[in-house]
Amino acid sequence: MTLTRKGQATRERILEAATALIAQNGVAGTSTEDVRKAAGISGSQLYHYFDSKQALIRAVITRQAEAPLIPGQPLMGALDSFDALRAWADAAIESQEHNNGRGDCTLATLAGELNPADEQTREDLCNAFQRWQALLHDGLKAMRERGDLHATADLDELALALLTALQGGTLLSQTLRTTQPMRAAMNAALAYIQTFAT
Amino acid sequence: MTLTRKGQATRERILEAATALIAQNGVAGTSTEDVRKAAGISGSQLYHYFDSKQALIRAVITRQAEAPLIPGQPLMGALDSFDALRAWADAAIESQEHNNGRGDCTLATLAGELNPADEQTREDLCNAFQRWQALLHDGLKAMRERGDLHATADLDELALALLTALQGGTLLSQTLRTTQPMRAAMNAALAYIQTFAT
Repeated sequence: MTLTRKGQATRERILEAATALIAQNGVAGTSTEDVRKAAGISGSQLYHYFDSKQALIRAVITRQAEAPLIPGQPLMGALDSFDALRAWADAAIESQEHNNGRGDCTLATLAGELNPADEQTREDLCNAFQRWQALLHDGLKAMRERGDLHATADLDELALALLTALQGGTLLSQTLRTTQPMRAAMNAALAYIQTFAT
Repeated sequence: MTLTRKGQATRERILEAATALIAQNGVAGTSTEDVRKAAGISGSQLYHYFDSKQALIRAVITRQAEAPLIPGQPLMGALDSFDALRAWADAAIESQEHNNGRGDCTLATLAGELNPADEQTREDLCNAFQRWQALLHDGLKAMRERGDLHATADLDELALALLTALQGGTLLSQTLRTTQPMRAAMNAALAYIQTFAT
């Protein structure tokens, strides 16, 4: 579907409203009627852009995949040095501090709510995770090429260590409402990468 | 509520049915009517044990907290040596292999589905996570007392590193349907603990 500039703005307004509501109430607690009201549009308008709740959720996932790796943070530069990775980890911890476990519409939350039988949505989530993994992988690759990391370092594994730390840290920090889990998860992932330093 | 032995068996049958259905369809996709049918009981019987869906979900969480740390694994002995921790990590990876991302009713999934406004259920999840954290902490404490870990090792942080690895690894392995995320998360957590070895 090709959208006019006005159409794109409306679509974006719907997605913003949906993302905020999901952050507040979860996927199950968010109806398309809630989204319609929050976006201030008619039912037929909503239907024009998203013909089902699933279509809307899938678009929220795709939008989140393009968002910065850490909610509330500006898009960070290349994560291609130990300093840059430490700054990224600190931003993730700080984000949990401000967030206080609320109002985050993260891929971790969306993945946790995934109905195992919903194969299309699962594929969207896979694509989103893999997009983030690729960003992390690119930075690690630059570090290896520069000679900061051993030639034997498994970059896929190290990128996944950072990504699982972000997801596990988010999940536990949101539930326990402290930054400690995110801090522990990030420290562990960075320590692991450090073991491959030259 | 004090239950007879028969009453306890019925309650357990309801919780088993609910746990299996949540693993299959998520919390949102599981109705109390589904649980009633799967457990083969009447509506008034179900109501006798759990007077709301929330009460049922809270009981599932409490039951999962008492389950082994890794689904499908027998309760493991004390995690009080590097070998025991490695065996635990391998069991977590193997569990994802057999599971193939389906049929797991884990705390990670339940936490992901948590409605941020549902404070009671959040507290149950906190208690469940803290129970697991305490198990991990106990093992690490024994290692420190034995002199395997430096006296300066922060046991709370190390226990959280293991727990976030398990949760982040579960979430990504279930979504991506490979064991790689769990392997990376566990390798990172163990490498972190290893940095405190004497």
